Amino acid sequence: MPVTFRAAVLRELNRPLAIETVEAPPLAAGQVLVKLAYSGVCHSQVMEARGGRGVDRYLPHMLGHEGSGVVVETGAGVTKVKTGDRVILGWIKGKGADAQGIRYKSGDGFINAGAVTTFNEYAVVAENRVTLLPQGLPMDVAVLFGCALPVGAGIVINIAKPAPGSTLAVFGLGGIGLSALMACKLFDCRQLIAVDVEPAKLAMARELGATATIDASQQDPVAAIRELTGGLGVDYAIESAGLVRVIEQAFDATRRFGGLCVFASHPRSGEKIALDPFELICGKRILGTWGGDANPDRDVDLLAGLFRAGKLPLASMFSRRYALDEINIALDDLEQRRSVRPLIEIDATLG
Amino acid sequence: MPVTFRAAVLRELNRPLAIETVEAPPLAAGQVLVKLAYSGVCHSQVMEARGGRGVDRYLPHMLGHEGSGVVVETGAGVTKVKTGDRVILGWIKGKGADAQGIRYKSGDGFINAGAVTTFNEYAVVAENRVTLLPQGLPMDVAVLFGCALPVGAGIVINIAKPAPGSTLAVFGLGGIGLSALMACKLFDCRQLIAVDVEPAKLAMARELGATATIDASQQDPVAAIRELTGGLGVDYAIESAGLVRVIEQAFDATRRFGGLCVFASHPRSGEKIALDPFELICGKRILGTWGGDANPDRDVDLLAGLFRAGKLPLASMFSRRYALDEINIALDDLEQRRSVRPLIEIDATLG
Repeated sequence: MPVTFRAAVLRELNRPLAIETVEAPPLAAGQVLVKLAYSGVCHSQVMEARGGRGVDRYLPHMLGHEGSGVVVETGAGVTKVKTGDRVILGWIKGKGADAQGIRYKSGDGFINAGAVTTFNEYAVVAENRVTLLPQGLPMDVAVLFGCALPVGAGIVINIAKPAPGSTLAVFGLGGIGLSALMACKLFDCRQLIAVDVEPAKLAMARELGATATIDASQQDPVAAIRELTGGLGVDYAIESAGLVRVIEQAFDATRRFGGLCVFASHPRSGEKIALDPFELICGKRILGTWGGDANPDRDVDLLAGLFRAGKLPLASMFSRRYALDEINIALDDLEQRRSVRPLIEIDATLG
Repeated sequence: MPVTFRAAVLRELNRPLAIETVEAPPLAAGQVLVKLAYSGVCHSQVMEARGGRGVDRYLPHMLGHEGSGVVVETGAGVTKVKTGDRVILGWIKGKGADAQGIRYKSGDGFINAGAVTTFNEYAVVAENRVTLLPQGLPMDVAVLFGCALPVGAGIVINIAKPAPGSTLAVFGLGGIGLSALMACKLFDCRQLIAVDVEPAKLAMARELGATATIDASQQDPVAAIRELTGGLGVDYAIESAGLVRVIEQAFDATRRFGGLCVFASHPRSGEKIALDPFELICGKRILGTWGGDANPDRDVDLLAGLFRAGKLPLASMFSRRYALDEINIALDDLEQRRSVRPLIEIDATLG
């Protein structure tokens, strides 16, 4: 008997998502059927829904790439999880089959979906996009392990690896930026500077241990960082504000001769960053990152251990919880910076 | 008795250099007086003379940063060279005192000079800008060991270190680009693509072993490189054309997920490069370089060994020799791409 359930569907760019009843296809080899407990909302979904990725060849399609839930059924050959397992869903590939090509039925037509979607009550997911939920990790906090946390912490732990006594700045205090900030606190930082345009987020950064905060709507963050660092700029600048202008600021705020700027932002399609080549000649480095070089099969357990040890106060990111029906409000709140990381409660009874 | 001699002086931006008689100051500790045999001309001097570096706080000043000559006198504490030694002069710092603050007398006034200048018959040079001439290296070819060769070859040997079977492209076949091309031939390259707008330079690249050449005045080099590499782009793109547009092309021609673009160009002050951040997210890397990470005390001997073994046909770069009086013609020829690397004969009797 096919599972039918409610899902948020993007039928047209720049239009609200439609909540529709869809029917899951039979599982192909390497696929897993999951009943969702929670989903997070990433800025990427705002960009997708608002046309920020350019022409969308997949319309109509489902959305969402970080979530948590319980395995209902597994397709042929799946060995990573079994029915009844509590799992994290995320977009970063881990072990297991990369079983894509998922299409749901809706009325007379079909709805496309990537290897993972989470704005829906159930999801057919590729085996390599699920990870077993570690012990002691609540299902709500677990959604952050699908994207924000491995990316933000990964930038620090896997890429920057700040040397003791370093100076760091984090631009953009969304889910990724706050995760990066928490990860910076695991290292011995001489200065940890948080930059955003929302006083509430800057206050949160101070609670998380930032040594200084800069409201970029009130002052030039590059000049402020230079002043805080004796004119040099920071050793490491981590950017996750989603804007080319902020990537440029983070680069400008990085010190010459060895400084490293890592950005996680994926700005609107076609927008470019403008860099002074002389700054690169002077040994300033810039790297983009595909998911913080995270490997879910390795990093989820490592990060869960840090969470259990009280070193990652992740629940602070959820300023508001939303029902699936409120998905468009959640997207608006994220776009308007009224919410750090909206949490969608799909079936809280699962965890 | 103070040494007086002729020197090319930049008194005003965008004006020809003036040949003036100047008087060397007494040597300070850590300085070396050198009688010049030859000088090279680097695109940097064109940029300096034409105002491409913005406001020039040092006017009037002397110029030139790669040369060869004989030590006439050494200041207190100099141990690296002694009177009579044949030396290479270059801008990249090696061992020895960084003894700057050099001012020559000219008429009633003074002429500023950096730690090394070479458009002059004599030069007071900081100890860390001289290197003993290796055995078997002609004094004319030796000038290239002061800048073009360690930078161009350094990009390949010290920075890119191409893996066997790599695909490479070199953009801009001046002294640095041709040096890079020669260094690429020391590695096992599957493809070695040379890009320029001068047919004569492209012919030279083919003689040096380029597997393909692209005339960027006739076709889009990015599209051509994609076609040559099965749509992927090259593993390594090396850029030394001096233009932001060409740095951008080199970046665009680099493959995603591990490709590396290294540029040596130092474009006009204020000009920026525009990069698609998504390409960086996809693991394309870009590095500027300060002198190819070269260390003259290590690299000059290494490169001289390769020259003696016949692996660096450097003399091919000198299409024309100029007297010191012809320095402005040499700068024009370099700017107009009529000469790969002008060679200034100052006193050919020295070597």
